[in-house]
Amino acid sequence: MARYVFGADVGGTTAKIGLLSETGEKLDFWEIPTRTENNGEMIIPDVAESIRNKMKEKGLNDNDVIGAGIGVPGAVNVDGICYQAVNLGWENMNVVNELHSKLKLPVKAGNDANVAALGESWKGGGQGYRNMLLVTLGTGVGGGIIIEGKILAGAKGAGGEIGHIHLVDDEPDSCGCGKHGCFEQFASATGAVRLAKRVLESSTEDSVLRGKDFECKDIFDGYKAGDALCKKAAEQYGYYLGKGIAAVATVVNPEIIVIGGGVSKAGDVLFDLLMPSFKKYVFPGCADAKFALAKLGNDAGVFGAAKMLID
Amino acid sequence: MARYVFGADVGGTTAKIGLLSETGEKLDFWEIPTRTENNGEMIIPDVAESIRNKMKEKGLNDNDVIGAGIGVPGAVNVDGICYQAVNLGWENMNVVNELHSKLKLPVKAGNDANVAALGESWKGGGQGYRNMLLVTLGTGVGGGIIIEGKILAGAKGAGGEIGHIHLVDDEPDSCGCGKHGCFEQFASATGAVRLAKRVLESSTEDSVLRGKDFECKDIFDGYKAGDALCKKAAEQYGYYLGKGIAAVATVVNPEIIVIGGGVSKAGDVLFDLLMPSFKKYVFPGCADAKFALAKLGNDAGVFGAAKMLID
Repeated sequence: MARYVFGADVGGTTAKIGLLSETGEKLDFWEIPTRTENNGEMIIPDVAESIRNKMKEKGLNDNDVIGAGIGVPGAVNVDGICYQAVNLGWENMNVVNELHSKLKLPVKAGNDANVAALGESWKGGGQGYRNMLLVTLGTGVGGGIIIEGKILAGAKGAGGEIGHIHLVDDEPDSCGCGKHGCFEQFASATGAVRLAKRVLESSTEDSVLRGKDFECKDIFDGYKAGDALCKKAAEQYGYYLGKGIAAVATVVNPEIIVIGGGVSKAGDVLFDLLMPSFKKYVFPGCADAKFALAKLGNDAGVFGAAKMLID
Repeated sequence: MARYVFGADVGGTTAKIGLLSETGEKLDFWEIPTRTENNGEMIIPDVAESIRNKMKEKGLNDNDVIGAGIGVPGAVNVDGICYQAVNLGWENMNVVNELHSKLKLPVKAGNDANVAALGESWKGGGQGYRNMLLVTLGTGVGGGIIIEGKILAGAKGAGGEIGHIHLVDDEPDSCGCGKHGCFEQFASATGAVRLAKRVLESSTEDSVLRGKDFECKDIFDGYKAGDALCKKAAEQYGYYLGKGIAAVATVVNPEIIVIGGGVSKAGDVLFDLLMPSFKKYVFPGCADAKFALAKLGNDAGVFGAAKMLID
């Protein structure tokens, strides 16, 4: 008999929820609002109710459902305890116990970036590999490490927080975490813009970036169109991206490194840009890791949340 | 009925083998020579025979023994395949299959540094913690990462090769791995001596280190005795040690970081020396990791090899 699994990816504004087959077919994906009032006390009951309603709608009983996984924007340890999720108003929330008490089905919980990594390793860019590193290049740099098919959560759920590896000495700007010189200050979309601004300031050469409030995408578009300063900025970006990934790969020796997030829309050109410094800085025994782009986009978290229930 | 387990830690000259109870009591530890001739073809048969002889001597039959674990000086993946162990003459050796075919008992295999980490997490400095980083400071810098009580082997068994994280730009000397600026060039015993030599060259001040072919131990002894240049060298050493450990801790978020190897004989002073840069460079969410010294010395590998059989 076919069996089903639910995944939920809770963000600060909406929660994406999905019904999947146990083999990972996407059957029904939807969204509900995330109600953050009163320290987010309704978030988990809302997810549980939405899943119960879907079960009723589809005529599924408890025996048809393996369980539900949930990814949340905060550190979650291996027992499903979320120490803090600022965007949800949570502190020391036992996500697994709370959701289980409402849903009465098997439950697992994880950090959203880690859960997205699991999703990409199940049905996305890392499909078929049991040891994977996901690097998510967005406003910040997130990451998730999959070891033998499981999330590396770490002691307090901060495993895979690769955006805050120290990468550059003497960086005057401070990172969101309070430190100076973090990987994410260079390899995020914001970081790319920061690097490009420095390139523009260091030169009088013309560029498509001049005279406008440009975004990360403009840098890579300009690079592809042959703009010299965009090329310089993109190469600097690639240098730092490759150097940071090399450090992580040296520690955990992934089979495949999957690049996701908004910056990954630049496409395969990212691999060309990062490869020289990756090869320069990675431990030779870890240098043959494959690279791929993420495939699941915003669905990765739902897939990964569901996958936590399936071994 | 009490049950037993064997652990073997194979080095280039001798193999240490141990008989332990399943709760980790050290019952009998001994050594046999490692015969590396003919590409080390006799190493595994010798270990198997030695274990079989011990079983006979102790009157143990197959049902009394859970199995045997083996640590070897080379990269070993999660399936027990050793890609290369230069000191043993091995290439692409299926250690698990080979040992099992001789011993006819359940077998597990791992890299020696990773296996030592598992030993320290079972009965050594990391006892009681399921997420641990072992940093071994000897001629080089080795390491092992334990996640939820298991070795992080990585795709090709190079997981935990933390000695080759890139740490310092513009380092003129080359590392054994062929790169420049690896963690191990600064944080190994050899690295400490290298740093101290640079300190001596940069100054005309007197020091206990002058005029002799000093070792790492002399630096820390001099530091404890108040020698100013030893203090400078030890502080530089601590800076790099803390900075490298911070990078690894940010990736894997250990509960405890255990320091072993020859340099760890310097004692708790190492923690004082490394802590300022550790705190400066680690991701705040990973900053509350505990630190401890390794406790098992040369027995760590045997304990860890045995522990692989026990879940």
